[in-house]
Amino acid sequence: MKCSVCKKPAIIKLRAHNVSFCEKCLQDFVKRRVREAINNFKMITKDDKILVAVSGGKDSLAVWEILHNMGYDVDGFHIDLGIDSYSELSTEKSIEFSKKLDRKLIIADVRDHFDGKNIFEIAKKAGRVTCSVCGLIKRYLMNSSAYKGGYTVLVTGHNLDDESAALFGNLMFWRDNYLASQYPVLPATDPKLIRKVKPLIYLTEREIAAYNIVKGIDYIYDECPFAEGATSIFMKKELNNIEKKSPGMKLKLLKGFFRRHDVFKELSENSNNLETNHYCSVCGFPTMADDKCAYCRLIDKVKG
Amino acid sequence: MKCSVCKKPAIIKLRAHNVSFCEKCLQDFVKRRVREAINNFKMITKDDKILVAVSGGKDSLAVWEILHNMGYDVDGFHIDLGIDSYSELSTEKSIEFSKKLDRKLIIADVRDHFDGKNIFEIAKKAGRVTCSVCGLIKRYLMNSSAYKGGYTVLVTGHNLDDESAALFGNLMFWRDNYLASQYPVLPATDPKLIRKVKPLIYLTEREIAAYNIVKGIDYIYDECPFAEGATSIFMKKELNNIEKKSPGMKLKLLKGFFRRHDVFKELSENSNNLETNHYCSVCGFPTMADDKCAYCRLIDKVKG
Repeated sequence: MKCSVCKKPAIIKLRAHNVSFCEKCLQDFVKRRVREAINNFKMITKDDKILVAVSGGKDSLAVWEILHNMGYDVDGFHIDLGIDSYSELSTEKSIEFSKKLDRKLIIADVRDHFDGKNIFEIAKKAGRVTCSVCGLIKRYLMNSSAYKGGYTVLVTGHNLDDESAALFGNLMFWRDNYLASQYPVLPATDPKLIRKVKPLIYLTEREIAAYNIVKGIDYIYDECPFAEGATSIFMKKELNNIEKKSPGMKLKLLKGFFRRHDVFKELSENSNNLETNHYCSVCGFPTMADDKCAYCRLIDKVKG
Repeated sequence: MKCSVCKKPAIIKLRAHNVSFCEKCLQDFVKRRVREAINNFKMITKDDKILVAVSGGKDSLAVWEILHNMGYDVDGFHIDLGIDSYSELSTEKSIEFSKKLDRKLIIADVRDHFDGKNIFEIAKKAGRVTCSVCGLIKRYLMNSSAYKGGYTVLVTGHNLDDESAALFGNLMFWRDNYLASQYPVLPATDPKLIRKVKPLIYLTEREIAAYNIVKGIDYIYDECPFAEGATSIFMKKELNNIEKKSPGMKLKLLKGFFRRHDVFKELSENSNNLETNHYCSVCGFPTMADDKCAYCRLIDKVKG
């Protein structure tokens, strides 16, 4: 198998694009895809002060490395969830990589915010599903930390598999509000809400993993222990079956959705709710609730 | 297992509805679902002169029987595709059932229209995929026969599995024109185009098969020999996986789509093409082509 570009021995074949790449040309391909995403959605500029959410996994480390090497100004933000060895390793890989890039890494430990409790204990005390509580905490801490640090953009490492599987579920179950808000750029609708962007949306997990291996990026392989059996993983599997039969369908599904996004915004009457923000009476950040935001109510519940 | 309605021994459990039924209550359920579809989309009235497309399979025989017993005026229309034993049996079952209902069955044999060639030979001569040619011929002969016979509505036996799988494919590959036109009622946009309706859209294959067995309807079990490996069958399988995990999702997917249909009509600029009809210079039926319709061009190709 030869590289479709330079004819040297190829190390990977990408059926969706009907190409094979050597190590060097794979890197060019990955960077091209990231640049395409950034340009298509005007995600970031060299003037932005960027904070990337870093888990220590392949996606977050890759996007940090790529943006850094493209000359963007990017620090990292890591949340220690306190899940035993998984979180320890996750934090360790994040710190190591920040040193390698010689960039600042802000670390938040959920135990510092929730009376010494880890994410599992928080969810249990609140009587809620772990993944839902974890999402709430991550979104809140990411935004508030970026705001306090003076960052202008938040980057997450969501890839094509994540985004197409989420879209797949949102379409299958007609989640209009999610369809309306699923987009590679979430604008800052309030001075205290930081703009969010997803530069890896055009790249699959496999392409990103291969990039990391080729670049010698040392990431954590394990998935979060709570992810097992999650619906999102089931949806990814189903979509992979269709992709196998129709290589390239994931990318077409997602790109086609973005092109039709205006129509899906119409579907959701509530999609503009965030523009009529209230502010939390405790922390002062925007919320759709009348008084306290969901995060501060969670703190009450866990501490009370 | 007891019937959820009358507490007699149940013969079938329907997870999507979280109910079990005895023979009698299953029949009531099936008829209720058909009535619901008819009412929701104002499909037919007792004044309509109805022609149902009959293949001899479970769907077409069931819908014929149900509408007939509800007091509608329904004749049958069958196309003999000339595919050896499959077509022979298919025609035989259709004739038998028309006798049982004591209703007229119009039979068209493709070989009478295409120089003695069966559907496979027609497709080969035209250099086209069999299923695509078959669809074109069926749509043409159904419409023209209904028009010539003075029928006001054409009924087809498309069920929930057919429709949700078609929708699934149309969504996954963003087929805007198909999304715009996929609806349980296709209005007559021209005096020579007969209105088409699908009264079985709320019923699964399994529910319809069970109904036929309970009612002693003798249908052909075999699928068309050309259907094997068809994408529609693959899509049905994928959707069945999701349905298994989330019972009822097929019905919700389809109903949710119908509720949002206006938005999907917007997506397709071409969806109104049929309202600016030309007429075929040979047969006089409406066509989107400038001169001869696709059916008459197919005849030229096969005979020439």
